[in-house]
Amino acid sequence: MFDADDLGRTEALFAVGNGYLGLRGNVEEGRDRYAHGTFINGFHETWTIRHAEAAYGFAHTGQTIVNVPDTKVLRLYVDDEPLLLSVADLVAYERTLDLADGVLTRDLVWRTPSGNRVRVRSRRMVSFTQRHLAVYTFDVTVLDAPAPVVVSSQVINRQDGLDEYRTKPKSGGVPDPRRAWAFEERVLQPILQWGGGDRAVLGYQCTHSGMTLAVATDHRIETENEYEVLTQVEQDVAKHVFRIRAQPGRPIRITKTVSYHTSRNVPARELVDRCRRTLDRVLDEGVEKQFADQRGWMDAYWARSDVEVEGQPELQQAIRWNLFQLAAAAARAEGTGISAKGVTGSGYGGHYFWDSEIYVVPFFVYTSPVVARNALRFRCTMLPAARDRAQEVTQRGALFPWRTINGEEASAYYAAGTAQYHIDADISYAVSKYVQATGDEEFMAQDGVDVLVETARMWADLGFWRGNGADTFHIHGVTGPDEYTTVVNDNLYTNVMARFNLRRAVRAVTELERDRPVEHARMVARLGLVDDEVLEWSRVADAMAIPYDANLGIHPQDSSFHEREVWDLRNTPADKRPLMLHYHPLVIYRFQVLKQADVVLALFLQGEYFTAEQKRADFEYYEPITTGDSTLSGIVQSIVAAEVGYHALALRHFHESLFVDLADLHANTADGVHVASAGGVWGALVHGFGGMRDDVPELSFDPRLPDAWPSLTFRLTVRDTRLLVTVRADSITFAAETGDGAAVTVRGRRVVVDSQDPVTVLLDGQGPRLEGEPGAAAPPGTHRADGTVITASVPHDTGSDS
Amino acid sequence: MFDADDLGRTEALFAVGNGYLGLRGNVEEGRDRYAHGTFINGFHETWTIRHAEAAYGFAHTGQTIVNVPDTKVLRLYVDDEPLLLSVADLVAYERTLDLADGVLTRDLVWRTPSGNRVRVRSRRMVSFTQRHLAVYTFDVTVLDAPAPVVVSSQVINRQDGLDEYRTKPKSGGVPDPRRAWAFEERVLQPILQWGGGDRAVLGYQCTHSGMTLAVATDHRIETENEYEVLTQVEQDVAKHVFRIRAQPGRPIRITKTVSYHTSRNVPARELVDRCRRTLDRVLDEGVEKQFADQRGWMDAYWARSDVEVEGQPELQQAIRWNLFQLAAAAARAEGTGISAKGVTGSGYGGHYFWDSEIYVVPFFVYTSPVVARNALRFRCTMLPAARDRAQEVTQRGALFPWRTINGEEASAYYAAGTAQYHIDADISYAVSKYVQATGDEEFMAQDGVDVLVETARMWADLGFWRGNGADTFHIHGVTGPDEYTTVVNDNLYTNVMARFNLRRAVRAVTELERDRPVEHARMVARLGLVDDEVLEWSRVADAMAIPYDANLGIHPQDSSFHEREVWDLRNTPADKRPLMLHYHPLVIYRFQVLKQADVVLALFLQGEYFTAEQKRADFEYYEPITTGDSTLSGIVQSIVAAEVGYHALALRHFHESLFVDLADLHANTADGVHVASAGGVWGALVHGFGGMRDDVPELSFDPRLPDAWPSLTFRLTVRDTRLLVTVRADSITFAAETGDGAAVTVRGRRVVVDSQDPVTVLLDGQGPRLEGEPGAAAPPGTHRADGTVITASVPHDTGSDS
Repeated sequence: MFDADDLGRTEALFAVGNGYLGLRGNVEEGRDRYAHGTFINGFHETWTIRHAEAAYGFAHTGQTIVNVPDTKVLRLYVDDEPLLLSVADLVAYERTLDLADGVLTRDLVWRTPSGNRVRVRSRRMVSFTQRHLAVYTFDVTVLDAPAPVVVSSQVINRQDGLDEYRTKPKSGGVPDPRRAWAFEERVLQPILQWGGGDRAVLGYQCTHSGMTLAVATDHRIETENEYEVLTQVEQDVAKHVFRIRAQPGRPIRITKTVSYHTSRNVPARELVDRCRRTLDRVLDEGVEKQFADQRGWMDAYWARSDVEVEGQPELQQAIRWNLFQLAAAAARAEGTGISAKGVTGSGYGGHYFWDSEIYVVPFFVYTSPVVARNALRFRCTMLPAARDRAQEVTQRGALFPWRTINGEEASAYYAAGTAQYHIDADISYAVSKYVQATGDEEFMAQDGVDVLVETARMWADLGFWRGNGADTFHIHGVTGPDEYTTVVNDNLYTNVMARFNLRRAVRAVTELERDRPVEHARMVARLGLVDDEVLEWSRVADAMAIPYDANLGIHPQDSSFHEREVWDLRNTPADKRPLMLHYHPLVIYRFQVLKQADVVLALFLQGEYFTAEQKRADFEYYEPITTGDSTLSGIVQSIVAAEVGYHALALRHFHESLFVDLADLHANTADGVHVASAGGVWGALVHGFGGMRDDVPELSFDPRLPDAWPSLTFRLTVRDTRLLVTVRADSITFAAETGDGAAVTVRGRRVVVDSQDPVTVLLDGQGPRLEGEPGAAAPPGTHRADGTVITASVPHDTGSDS
Repeated sequence: MFDADDLGRTEALFAVGNGYLGLRGNVEEGRDRYAHGTFINGFHETWTIRHAEAAYGFAHTGQTIVNVPDTKVLRLYVDDEPLLLSVADLVAYERTLDLADGVLTRDLVWRTPSGNRVRVRSRRMVSFTQRHLAVYTFDVTVLDAPAPVVVSSQVINRQDGLDEYRTKPKSGGVPDPRRAWAFEERVLQPILQWGGGDRAVLGYQCTHSGMTLAVATDHRIETENEYEVLTQVEQDVAKHVFRIRAQPGRPIRITKTVSYHTSRNVPARELVDRCRRTLDRVLDEGVEKQFADQRGWMDAYWARSDVEVEGQPELQQAIRWNLFQLAAAAARAEGTGISAKGVTGSGYGGHYFWDSEIYVVPFFVYTSPVVARNALRFRCTMLPAARDRAQEVTQRGALFPWRTINGEEASAYYAAGTAQYHIDADISYAVSKYVQATGDEEFMAQDGVDVLVETARMWADLGFWRGNGADTFHIHGVTGPDEYTTVVNDNLYTNVMARFNLRRAVRAVTELERDRPVEHARMVARLGLVDDEVLEWSRVADAMAIPYDANLGIHPQDSSFHEREVWDLRNTPADKRPLMLHYHPLVIYRFQVLKQADVVLALFLQGEYFTAEQKRADFEYYEPITTGDSTLSGIVQSIVAAEVGYHALALRHFHESLFVDLADLHANTADGVHVASAGGVWGALVHGFGGMRDDVPELSFDPRLPDAWPSLTFRLTVRDTRLLVTVRADSITFAAETGDGAAVTVRGRRVVVDSQDPVTVLLDGQGPRLEGEPGAAAPPGTHRADGTVITASVPHDTGSDS
């Protein structure tokens, strides 16, 4: 049943979107809400960041996604009484997000105060086939007695209205940095309003960013009841009001089609024409064709992307919900990036981060390569801004912003933002992965190589030579993905990924010269590349410092990580979690305690450079000091736990990721879906349990199927072939669903899959098995003043014992 | 002559103040200005710091000194033409700040547009004897022809008027963090206005801090010309307008006496009464008595404080100007602290920093102990706030705020703010120095010991035991005084000073128990002290990690300082200095490059723990990588250069400090006088060239007289004795000007000075002599990729060569 306490979470869980346009799962009546939200990827307002204490090079342009005018509102009045879910007498209530149809449906029966029952069924869809289109249908039937029925279909500019999206921080006055601010002044300047007949249009321009938007609606009513329609259009609201004299059992259907168009520079007036064209086409085709097209699109999506776990219906549903979120966040993103919250909320300001390339793009590389290509193309268009930013921080090449919408650095806290230089390597990693899986050498020659060259330049310039004989290359003063330790020297993740980046750039330049000399020459001219640079990148990569502690037999997260005190997570009370909301950064940074384990991430992304023994030792060291306060944490812990043999733990971490939003494990799903985590769910299934690795062009498999799963089935698109892969306890089976087939290896054995006929390889178990979970490592040399050796110490509250 | 381009600097250099009230050296006419300014120490407005990205524990309450109503304005009109210096035809012009009288005087002769010459003489004084009093006299004589003369004496609330103090950043859009912001809303709410006869009063309350202020003026005119007076009082302005029919050669004198009173909680109405009492008393006594009292106060000040350098009149004047600034910044500060800019400008927001205790308080300890006591008492009153702050950052004991007015942390950039935990030790150091020099054990028992105990608690809790056998105590994640390297482990300065702090606390507790058992028992109860704590402090102090690099033979600034790349200062262009205005902090932090040398400061403050050889080696290592971008840098470099034997360099660094403001060496004197540097000038003279150390109660002397100085003479008050000390090339002479005398040591030899009869000790030279200046050390293991060893590398601009 409807539960007003659950509004925030359900608004995110029942959101629909297509990567361009997103509608939170707000109820149609537009009253009860945690936060109304309609978002268009990349449509943002800018503001000047005012630092309380500024310094040279600090980010200056804030960028925040705008809550665009809300078209979801269809208010119902029967006997002049409004339907208001939080107080209505509901005889029946159900909401369904159909992952096969891509449609959100709500069915309810309302007993009005006068005792008349009213059946209401509504459908909501953001089209995957028509990027700018949303369709709503609203069916009302009075069941018991004649009654006047009013349906008020509205478009409301909520951004500049009551600003209902402004919410108070939950945690006792501590601002939650993950949540976006409200704006202080009007964002959307009204440019034009027009209404007539079934249609209404509104045009706006953002006050500071100058971005333009138009929204248009069409309405159709189908009923045998008598009715009349009134239209009213103002600056911040447009209404179509249907007044119906309803007879019992005589249905009413109102269909509302909506088009949004946005731009950086096209006048709003022209965007209105585009909206009109979209709506006219739908008028021609009819809305049921739109629903049918949606179903067709989803069929194809699932054929490419589905992951099946046999005999686990609850997991299966959760997996598909996560995979659906990836489509909703990215499918039609096209000229924009993939935002941390997709288009389901304003959390993180609608910004694009590194997690797009590391957790989300890989899914699309192997299921919908064109979406991966678009996401990477978008980064390529931001290369000029990244060059400017590198210059601002006194580096050669390009430095991509840590968080951004428009290409400018928007991170106002550099220690956990700008200092994460690894984003350069992460983007290069995704470029490489895409080209390897698709063979799209044209993309590499025209765009990808520029990214590789400019990022390699940044790395070679950022670090320096040191050591006896100047034989080691060091990178100082950076932050790795683990934001609980910042601005360190030789962060292992950063150095390992920078090494990859440098070598990949060398290879890209070399291969381009060999295979496409004309384009190579163009690239050399375009980037002013000289041979010495490329030689230098190889030398730098070969000499990259990789911290290793021979005594502990582990890779320290950075050059002085192991000198830190160990945080006693086991004795940290639950009400002090997540740590970042209860401790000053300086306190957290002083300890060995992780938001997410970035050494472990390096073990996965660059696994070929670590031995099995190293992976086990590193995993066992970092697992007990990893808080998982980042939603990205569980994914990688799961994948590497599976690889080294902690099967039960791998499954536990997988569940943490799978249910991040469905069970609201981080208590902030209300602010939007965690898209990177959703991408990671696919990664944990395919890389973790499926054991797939792609270090070399031929995929390899070393599965770790959970004991409780009879089978795991997934699809991988590699070049023109779609491989169907099924892992069972004692075998792995491949078939080529489309294309000419491919060669893979299974635990070192090469297997050629050349047709739809399945090829099965028998497996002798599911890899190594380690019992239990790694315990907290005895922190080396951490002792109490009284001489007793302790295994951990923890920051305490001074209030209680002083 | 008057120069409009020089307004900012001269407004600071000709400022007058008494540590409570300060008047910038604005011209009387109140038009031409860099920034009008009248400041009252500690009178501030608060505002909520809005962090662009906030985190737990970040400072939340901004505090900014308020520009209080300006009473300096005395506008002159002759023939209805205003005197406006920037366009006036000036026949003569001179301004004099008389350091013996404590009075600013201006003399000018103006040829009016009609050719009539007018002589104008004005005096301006902020009284040292009456804390709330300022006196202005304004003499006008027309010389050539009768003319209507108008003098408009005004009080103007400039804070909320045109806000003339708002200035644009100078350096191309880069905000200068040293400069305070303008307020965005009204600061001073008018509470009452009244005018009648010769008097006007205005009362205000700050919008957010709630602080109250009253200002009252009295006027008197003396002339044989005919005149009339008009009075006008409004919310933000009060005027007394004198219309005089002036005859040639017949003088006019207008005397304006002013009183300011401020409070945290007393209603403005009551403050008005206090102003009235001040003014009534002056009416009784007459203003000339105030000038005479001022002279008497200054005589006594110079008798206690003067430092004489024979045969160097320019240096002598500069020294006295600096010493005068100390009186103007602190003499009557009383219940407030000593601000970084004194009361001469709003730079640094009027905040109190550590440099008060390390650079300014020591001067007062040895010249005006009551001023030192007041400054330290002020810190003691902030102890409860410091306890709260410690709790906020999860530490026991007390953590003093890095910058503050009201006791709350106001540093919005923690890496170079809050992380400077060393402020706890700096305050403890000043407490210890004060008690040692004065023997004021009562202060220690009642106030000082609380500071020592609570800060010792903080240190013992902040660090942790580590190492083989847990035998070393480490302090991680702090920033030393050098703000070009932040958030490091085992900063040498911090650890050495924390060790001092811990040991001093142990001693204070032990001595209190021995000498004043009753007060000890009270203290134990008050602070909940247990014996184990005190034992722990000793153990911690003894085990404190002191970084030392045996290969280089130097103390690294922190545990990984020597792993950093060396910044090539010699090849850094002048237009890229100071570094903080041209490089992102992350860039600066990556390098061995210093804003000020904090290891060298430790060598001075805790000199007994370092050998002569270590001091020389450390000084030679750090000197070439020290930018001096902090005005505090030169002082300590001078003192230690002198000690280790770089005589010429010591003199050069001394000149850098001496002329920080007089020659505007940091191009920001306009924002206010650098008070800590002024204090350091005294330190460089007494400790550097005079060779005085006070590690033990009996002062020791090992002079380093510059070759060009025939003699150096200074005074030191120790307990009840004032020692007169004169250093010559071949001798040092002591006499007890007041009191019973004292024992000192000269290069190990004990000398008893027991009367006014001079005692002379012959000197064999002025210590060791090293030639030249230390060169840039070959940075260990810094090499280029091509295999060549280089001595330094430098961040470059990418624009020019990429």
